[in-house]
Amino acid sequence: MAILPRISSPADVRALRPAQLEGLAQEIRDFLVASVSRTGGHLGPNLGVVELTLAMHRAFESPRDTMIFDTGHQTYVHKMLTGRSDFAGLRQRGGLSGYPCREESVHDVVENSHASTALSWADGIAKANELRGHVDRHVVAVIGDGALTGGMAWEALNNIAAGQDRRLVVVVNDNGRSYDPTIGGLAHHLDTLRTTRGYENFLAWGKRTLRRSGPPGRLAYEALHGLKKGLKDVVAPQGLFEDLGIKYVGPVDGHDVTAVEQSLRRAKAFGGPVIVHVITEKGRGYVPAEQDVADRFHAVGKIHPETGLPVAPSRFGWTSVFADEMVRIGRRRPDVVGITAAMLQPVGLAPFAAEFPARAFDVGIAEQHAVTSAAGMAFAGLHPVVAVYATFLNRAFDQVLLDVALHRAGVTFVLDRAGLTGDDGASHNGMWDMSLMRMVPGLHLAAPRDEPTLRSALREAVDVDDAPTVVRYPKGPLPDALEAVDTVDGVDVLARHAGDGASVLVVGIGPMAHLAVEVGRMLDAEGLPTTVVDPRWVLPVPAALVKLAGEHDHVVVVEDGLVEGGVGAVLGQRCAEAGVGVPVQAVGIPLTFLDHATRAQLLETLRLRAEDVAHDVLALVRGPAV
Amino acid sequence: MAILPRISSPADVRALRPAQLEGLAQEIRDFLVASVSRTGGHLGPNLGVVELTLAMHRAFESPRDTMIFDTGHQTYVHKMLTGRSDFAGLRQRGGLSGYPCREESVHDVVENSHASTALSWADGIAKANELRGHVDRHVVAVIGDGALTGGMAWEALNNIAAGQDRRLVVVVNDNGRSYDPTIGGLAHHLDTLRTTRGYENFLAWGKRTLRRSGPPGRLAYEALHGLKKGLKDVVAPQGLFEDLGIKYVGPVDGHDVTAVEQSLRRAKAFGGPVIVHVITEKGRGYVPAEQDVADRFHAVGKIHPETGLPVAPSRFGWTSVFADEMVRIGRRRPDVVGITAAMLQPVGLAPFAAEFPARAFDVGIAEQHAVTSAAGMAFAGLHPVVAVYATFLNRAFDQVLLDVALHRAGVTFVLDRAGLTGDDGASHNGMWDMSLMRMVPGLHLAAPRDEPTLRSALREAVDVDDAPTVVRYPKGPLPDALEAVDTVDGVDVLARHAGDGASVLVVGIGPMAHLAVEVGRMLDAEGLPTTVVDPRWVLPVPAALVKLAGEHDHVVVVEDGLVEGGVGAVLGQRCAEAGVGVPVQAVGIPLTFLDHATRAQLLETLRLRAEDVAHDVLALVRGPAV
Repeated sequence: MAILPRISSPADVRALRPAQLEGLAQEIRDFLVASVSRTGGHLGPNLGVVELTLAMHRAFESPRDTMIFDTGHQTYVHKMLTGRSDFAGLRQRGGLSGYPCREESVHDVVENSHASTALSWADGIAKANELRGHVDRHVVAVIGDGALTGGMAWEALNNIAAGQDRRLVVVVNDNGRSYDPTIGGLAHHLDTLRTTRGYENFLAWGKRTLRRSGPPGRLAYEALHGLKKGLKDVVAPQGLFEDLGIKYVGPVDGHDVTAVEQSLRRAKAFGGPVIVHVITEKGRGYVPAEQDVADRFHAVGKIHPETGLPVAPSRFGWTSVFADEMVRIGRRRPDVVGITAAMLQPVGLAPFAAEFPARAFDVGIAEQHAVTSAAGMAFAGLHPVVAVYATFLNRAFDQVLLDVALHRAGVTFVLDRAGLTGDDGASHNGMWDMSLMRMVPGLHLAAPRDEPTLRSALREAVDVDDAPTVVRYPKGPLPDALEAVDTVDGVDVLARHAGDGASVLVVGIGPMAHLAVEVGRMLDAEGLPTTVVDPRWVLPVPAALVKLAGEHDHVVVVEDGLVEGGVGAVLGQRCAEAGVGVPVQAVGIPLTFLDHATRAQLLETLRLRAEDVAHDVLALVRGPAV
Repeated sequence: MAILPRISSPADVRALRPAQLEGLAQEIRDFLVASVSRTGGHLGPNLGVVELTLAMHRAFESPRDTMIFDTGHQTYVHKMLTGRSDFAGLRQRGGLSGYPCREESVHDVVENSHASTALSWADGIAKANELRGHVDRHVVAVIGDGALTGGMAWEALNNIAAGQDRRLVVVVNDNGRSYDPTIGGLAHHLDTLRTTRGYENFLAWGKRTLRRSGPPGRLAYEALHGLKKGLKDVVAPQGLFEDLGIKYVGPVDGHDVTAVEQSLRRAKAFGGPVIVHVITEKGRGYVPAEQDVADRFHAVGKIHPETGLPVAPSRFGWTSVFADEMVRIGRRRPDVVGITAAMLQPVGLAPFAAEFPARAFDVGIAEQHAVTSAAGMAFAGLHPVVAVYATFLNRAFDQVLLDVALHRAGVTFVLDRAGLTGDDGASHNGMWDMSLMRMVPGLHLAAPRDEPTLRSALREAVDVDDAPTVVRYPKGPLPDALEAVDTVDGVDVLARHAGDGASVLVVGIGPMAHLAVEVGRMLDAEGLPTTVVDPRWVLPVPAALVKLAGEHDHVVVVEDGLVEGGVGAVLGQRCAEAGVGVPVQAVGIPLTFLDHATRAQLLETLRLRAEDVAHDVLALVRGPAV
């Protein structure tokens, strides 16, 4: 008899007999593999937390107790247990978000998918509960061992330790990896805790004994687990967490649902902050994931459920070009090193690391450290290339500004997934980078439009040794190469259309250059004299672009980034300062958080297709009657 | 015989006999008290590191070995030992910087005065040294116990632990406080290490023994200290740092220069990363500082050297108004809480904390946690007020964006020291906040111009419960209150001057409103019809301001913030979007890092005085001939 169809709320989970849980866990795994292989999504992390999530919903009572999930892509099981069983539209417009979503459920709290925030949220909620007299409410936060390497988690632990009366349970979901295996001193320490085998040996002995004495019933299970817990505290080291003053429980086998549940109940009963250290396997129970040593099926596109092989070939063309060019640069420049924040594979640094292992540094989920340690490396004679997703550079703005730029350090930032990414929801869109980087004195930013300009931008960037350089490009397939018909002081001219009447300069930033060319054709079809250009290096805005703007009657800048303070806005400001009175129309992403949808859907909604832009330009040039 | 005048380089320090060091330390203290009481500056922190700095320059050889000082205001002694003895112009234009400064000396490396960066710099430099084969170069980083609560320090420690062959010494300068006493789990742990008395009891016994056996010579000292070190490792807990895999040496009496020197030499010889835990007293040796429980003379204006009392009364008028209004709000709103990042006194939250101790939270030097825990509190029914220096909000941009704004959390940010601060150098100017906050969807920002508008802005801000609000104000004395003559849809009209010819709208942001009124009078004297306004809530730019702009021939926006993407730029962009063709001239701080100088000097240099602005507006209105 299937149990899963009868689960529509946490109360249903709590009503189950312990003996039913293993079967339910299997049903959940089967559902996840079948469903996520059709839609794509974060498979590995969710397969790893099936038992943990079941145990949480039995030991705690959401929403009275608050459940916080760090980097919310590990909440598929939580969604299934809180009445959300339709995964057909996962991460698609109108379908379930791939992350917690307050609009979907009262059981969801934190929508931000950036890592290491959960403990700070939990500390804030626990402080508020205490102050408001809600002594019966618990806060339970789940954080991976990878996310614990992020500085915010440390700041939070330090504060959590200071509130010994607050009812806060931190679950460390320890699978030994973030995307890549977790690195550094913390990983070493967790490993020490993890490999203390005393309790596991005892558990094995207990299981053998139990097996000999009859079928395991609830009482026998509980007796065994209780005994195990008591003994564990004797034989396992408590370590770092108890040094900080936070009670430590663990390690617990995260795929033994009863053991996890009892640990959580014990932590709940303690009445103060407790860390429960749970050992899980990313990809657990799905053979292709378990056998994938690289990232355990962290996030997948659509895959064949049996083999785990992708239905469509890799979409990350930009990343592969970076990966290849980085290796070439590495061969001729021994001073060039690569830095990643726990994403060696996704950002394309893996081939460089394979060829130059001593010159690739994975700093953990620690963007601040990535940036500032790069400033240190530059001081000491290296040229670091820091490769991160564009959205994650927001984490290290102060370090780019005051460690790199203030010290005129030659550090190159490579921003992958810049612009609209779409299906990962609001916090994954790389839309803030250009508006942010324009505020950094001395910084140069390139937005290449295709493979050749990406390669040349990278080569030019690593040649700058007295200022930060940024190269940003989007997620998605590489467009065809687009050759310039001319170059004016470094600004590529992509098309010139003759015509009558008011002239238009169409500026395409990065991948929007292709769209700009299309817009140019459409305006040409309407008889407008139009020039289409791509400045490639867009910050600071080249003087040649201001001059070109002054030679036209209208300027439109199309960019895959925030229109608020973006490149179009910068060009407008430069023109105003130069007394160039031409109106500059900035077209890009408006100042709003975007619901998850495909990139194509978002482009349509935001009127960022060529026909939209051409239509609006025509309306402006010819007046609102058109 | 005075020793200090004969010290002009680290080599001179290394050449001294140990018996000379105590006397030199006393000379340095006398100099610091006499000099800093005349100029103002960071007195307490430097009095605390006299012996430590001497020991560092004996145990290591700068600049071959790299010395990094976290929050560089603790480098006065370092400056004195590296050939910089003229402190008469400290923190004044043309004089010594109050922070490390590469232009001053090859012994200075990190100019950024924001906390918790030193370990990341050190990790980067040590990695580069290793890669470049400089096995004889050591990196030594000094970080306070307060700065260790910052997340970056944790990220760095985690990475430092991963490089067991790198020659890196971390000195934890533990005085139990940052500005305020250090809080949280780490402080608790350091306290445990600190109060392990075994080695100190042994030391006392040794000193008694030694005293009986003759005058202490170098050999006797060294024997005693060597023995002390060996024994210490037996009786003191190693704790958290060794859990991470970093060798721990300590605790060491930071005012026993020989003990510190020997610990550092031992750490240097180890060949891998070592933490040396040094116990110091902020303000050591200066009675008024030692007796000041609040902040131990962290930073002082000009003071009477004997009493430590200020020569001029407190300059922080804006802060006191916030402090007072916050208490009033607290009395009528039990849901309002205050959050500070280790700066209860400087940001003016102390009176609120005194009246509502349960509702004031000092999170340590941890801006990211301050912001995200505030989002958690807002979720759970409170309205947090996060009070920080404007420059430090850069540290938590991602959290303001994705934890507060994305979740529509009612959190109020109060930014003190916004705009030009001047004498603390480039990294302390609060000039990025408005350009940064304009990129946050839904956020409201107020820049009050005087006491009444500061009070009303705060009251209005805490009434917004579905979006972040920001109130920003400068360092310095409060200007006189400036009454509006009229209000147009929320925009205060400060003056209307009739006249002939092209009309000018002068927009004064925050404290620049006073300057705007002056500019208005100057333009009036030239016969130009001029309107002077202050929108008070400047982000998002009010529609009424765009409308007003459209009713004039010229618009000038004067702001105490970055002109690049600031309020003037936003107004320009809004006008362009609305088809309002009026030229908007943005006047403010250019995109550059500013050398230390007084605020008045900077305003003059940047042409931000009323006469400069009026002159430039006239030139624009009448053409370049004027």
